[in-house]
Amino acid sequence: MRVIGIDPGLRTLGWGVIEQQGSRLSHIANGLCTSSGSDLGARLLSLYEQLSDVFHRFMPDAAAVEQTFVNRDGAGTLKLGQARGIAMLVPAQAGISIGEYAPNAVKKAIVGVGHAEKHQIAHMIGIHFPGVKPAGADAADALAIAITHAHHLQSGARLADAIARAS
Amino acid sequence: MRVIGIDPGLRTLGWGVIEQQGSRLSHIANGLCTSSGSDLGARLLSLYEQLSDVFHRFMPDAAAVEQTFVNRDGAGTLKLGQARGIAMLVPAQAGISIGEYAPNAVKKAIVGVGHAEKHQIAHMIGIHFPGVKPAGADAADALAIAITHAHHLQSGARLADAIARAS
Repeated sequence: MRVIGIDPGLRTLGWGVIEQQGSRLSHIANGLCTSSGSDLGARLLSLYEQLSDVFHRFMPDAAAVEQTFVNRDGAGTLKLGQARGIAMLVPAQAGISIGEYAPNAVKKAIVGVGHAEKHQIAHMIGIHFPGVKPAGADAADALAIAITHAHHLQSGARLADAIARAS
Repeated sequence: MRVIGIDPGLRTLGWGVIEQQGSRLSHIANGLCTSSGSDLGARLLSLYEQLSDVFHRFMPDAAAVEQTFVNRDGAGTLKLGQARGIAMLVPAQAGISIGEYAPNAVKKAIVGVGHAEKHQIAHMIGIHFPGVKPAGADAADALAIAITHAHHLQSGARLADAIARAS
């Protein structure tokens, strides 16, 4: 099963694709979709096209998107929301299910503590996938989201197996 | 010139299409795109498909989207932002320019005061387009946004004419 993780943002949207075979995870690719300028419609369209291209290239079977941290800055939340709308639309168009994880849940799953720093996430990505250099902090976060979702899917599958054997 | 106005929302997204010929505006159509349920990806995809269908049916030349009111409720702002991302993406995909207007600017342009009530907007739509019954308050707002943008484009065109004649 191929899982894509997405860390949404209007300026930089990180993505990371991993492959899950049994309990083994391997890195497929990671990268950043970026947009700039004052034309919001054009920026959202550009993110949409870049992310759609990633989906066409890597054909993921499942997706997970970071649950946005809602802060006190309304304008920032709105911007992020618009980018997150695109990050949710593309997997929905591909017809795959979308998991959503709060940043703290991702940190806890990857580093072991919910208040981990960005550089600790990047470090753990290096331990999961030796030799892999994420394209940036947002791509490292996206890989962390993908790993979190893969673990979640795996424990779900294990539970289903146990229920099937018990019945 | 055909102008579409869009009032974004996750549960209900209003749209209104008008035709501008010189200083004359006529009503073409208005309606609501709606989504419900707990699957955010599916809801955004549904709004995207409904709004894309409106674009295919009415082929607008220009679009205007309400500038979202950023309130203190971060979760609400995020939801609205996600729907607004879709409302901006569809016209950008159609390759048309997008105007953005704050609710107060729309009220001021339509009713004459920035603090007008919803029912006053609906009333003014009835005066602009006798016999037209908007599909709902969000569709009335969308028509008001379209009218505001048409006026804006018209005064821009008049200014360009005056400059051309003066030079």
